[in-house]
Amino acid sequence: MRRHSEFELIESLFGPLAMGFPGALGLKDDAALLDPPAGYSVVVTADAIVAGVHFRPDDPPDLIACKLVRVNLSDLAAMGAKPWVMVATMAFPDSASEDWISCFATGLSHERQQFGIPLIGGDTLVTPGPATFSLTAFGLVSQGQALRRSGAHPGDILYVTGTIGDGALGLRVLAGQLSFSGDESELAAHLINRYHLPQPRLTAGAGLLGMATACIDVSDGLLQDLSHLCQESGVGARLVMKRLPLSPSAVAAVRQTPSWLEAIVSGGDDYELLFTAPPSTQKALEELAQTTATAITAVGTIVAGGNDIVFDFEGTTVPFSRLGYQHFQACYPRPAGQERGWVLVADHLLQLVT
Amino acid sequence: MRRHSEFELIESLFGPLAMGFPGALGLKDDAALLDPPAGYSVVVTADAIVAGVHFRPDDPPDLIACKLVRVNLSDLAAMGAKPWVMVATMAFPDSASEDWISCFATGLSHERQQFGIPLIGGDTLVTPGPATFSLTAFGLVSQGQALRRSGAHPGDILYVTGTIGDGALGLRVLAGQLSFSGDESELAAHLINRYHLPQPRLTAGAGLLGMATACIDVSDGLLQDLSHLCQESGVGARLVMKRLPLSPSAVAAVRQTPSWLEAIVSGGDDYELLFTAPPSTQKALEELAQTTATAITAVGTIVAGGNDIVFDFEGTTVPFSRLGYQHFQACYPRPAGQERGWVLVADHLLQLVT
Repeated sequence: MRRHSEFELIESLFGPLAMGFPGALGLKDDAALLDPPAGYSVVVTADAIVAGVHFRPDDPPDLIACKLVRVNLSDLAAMGAKPWVMVATMAFPDSASEDWISCFATGLSHERQQFGIPLIGGDTLVTPGPATFSLTAFGLVSQGQALRRSGAHPGDILYVTGTIGDGALGLRVLAGQLSFSGDESELAAHLINRYHLPQPRLTAGAGLLGMATACIDVSDGLLQDLSHLCQESGVGARLVMKRLPLSPSAVAAVRQTPSWLEAIVSGGDDYELLFTAPPSTQKALEELAQTTATAITAVGTIVAGGNDIVFDFEGTTVPFSRLGYQHFQACYPRPAGQERGWVLVADHLLQLVT
Repeated sequence: MRRHSEFELIESLFGPLAMGFPGALGLKDDAALLDPPAGYSVVVTADAIVAGVHFRPDDPPDLIACKLVRVNLSDLAAMGAKPWVMVATMAFPDSASEDWISCFATGLSHERQQFGIPLIGGDTLVTPGPATFSLTAFGLVSQGQALRRSGAHPGDILYVTGTIGDGALGLRVLAGQLSFSGDESELAAHLINRYHLPQPRLTAGAGLLGMATACIDVSDGLLQDLSHLCQESGVGARLVMKRLPLSPSAVAAVRQTPSWLEAIVSGGDDYELLFTAPPSTQKALEELAQTTATAITAVGTIVAGGNDIVFDFEGTTVPFSRLGYQHFQACYPRPAGQERGWVLVADHLLQLVT
């Protein structure tokens, strides 16, 4: 069967994703036209994902599309912005069937509905390499109100939404490195779902406007992103390990093999919000957690000192060097012995939580 | 030598490209903040390029970066927009050296200077596949003034800037398919330069505001893009073949092998503006050509009839079906005999121009 031409494909599969937004010009012009409402700043973020690096080539195509959108929406959430529109460049491998591309478009369509974010432009192409998708997401936030990484003060409480580590462990389940007994298949399913379908914390992020002093989304790993927040704010942090919000699946994984803790705190793919707020906001945050049905957990405190982060084990503190998944470091093996250190830390943690 | 981490790379190579634009937040936050000036629409376009498809893997990395920027700026030019900011996602192959990446950043830096367009965000990653770059370019245009593809009327004159076909022929020179004798090396150099370094027609595009009735940039090939313009405007066109503006290099190529005409009118990579304007604007267009030092050539007329395009050979008209480079069709061999048709057309054209 002859494949559709590029222009027919754009029109039939992606054209409908532009509907309802006149400035998209039906994806039929050289560019789109945006007129932001008065009093708002436009928040812009872009992330790309590559088959074999950020998703598994055999992941369902609609879920790949959802993840592409959500990793970007998570960045909007971290600024407290409301999603507005998106632009995507999509390089499909020559081997991708029309069904595969169509299923991918269905995923984008789902996200357009779910988050009210039309596709207003972009590019479709064929690549001789792995599927590669880039998305630029646009949000809106009241002028001067956007959350930043740089406003944390000593004395602020450090919070995180949801649970940490599930996405990273879900990837290990899919790779066959982590498994649960037959009775516990729902533990694995939870992790896989969290890997495939991040939940950008948009309503929580918007609710933090005027309350959080600093905010970042956890995409590179809790430690790495905490390090970014501390660096931009010029502060240190004390992370109370026993307060880390872990799902039952993550707890079960660490009970099996304590060194999974490393994946939990540095594996990334969480798309939760890590933020700071003064102690005076505690009650308001409890209300926000209730109204948005989002777990918000205090996991530590901000202290003076440039980017000086310590583990706190009920009084005993352990400093740690910067870790976390970095794309350009992933090519290199981890230094010998480092994994052993994580086992010790996890053992210690287990004594606290069990 | 250990490669820099992703964050160090962003900071050292790409951070400086954000300077002077406070909303970029130094590329150190989750997203960038844009506050468009009152009275302007934001024009947004995104195009991706892949090694081996849109550029040659051994092209100089700084020129690849320039091309990435310029193919997008050409879309802004087609709307009459002034460049504002850009966002890039850059997937470098694992084999790319720091020197290669650094040279690529130098190209972006050059474009930032040349077009006053800071890099306000994006993503850098490593891909197991070919180098893949996606850029979202933002422009500004007075509200309600943007040029569109859809406003051409019967009776309008059809114009094109610069010369057509040089980029497509430049690619053939680099591929060893087209060569010139030793005395004519500057003919080849001109084509190669046009392939590597498109000249987005930004000042001409801005000058067309309020004058052109429809406009598109020629990226997929003159015939393909004329077809888009006609389709969106609901009109036909009569293209006077002997008026096509060809460089001395392109004329020499067609004299060698008449079928190069197909590459000229359908090969793409021109990044010239194809636009329509009523006959009353002729004098103003001549002035615009002078003040912007841009050749503007009348190449035909707009006629009634849906997307009905004919060649005009001084009275004899030849209809032609839609052609042009389409990424999704490029996988399939061209129908047999079609090339012979182009030789006949080119022979006919040569009789007119020689």
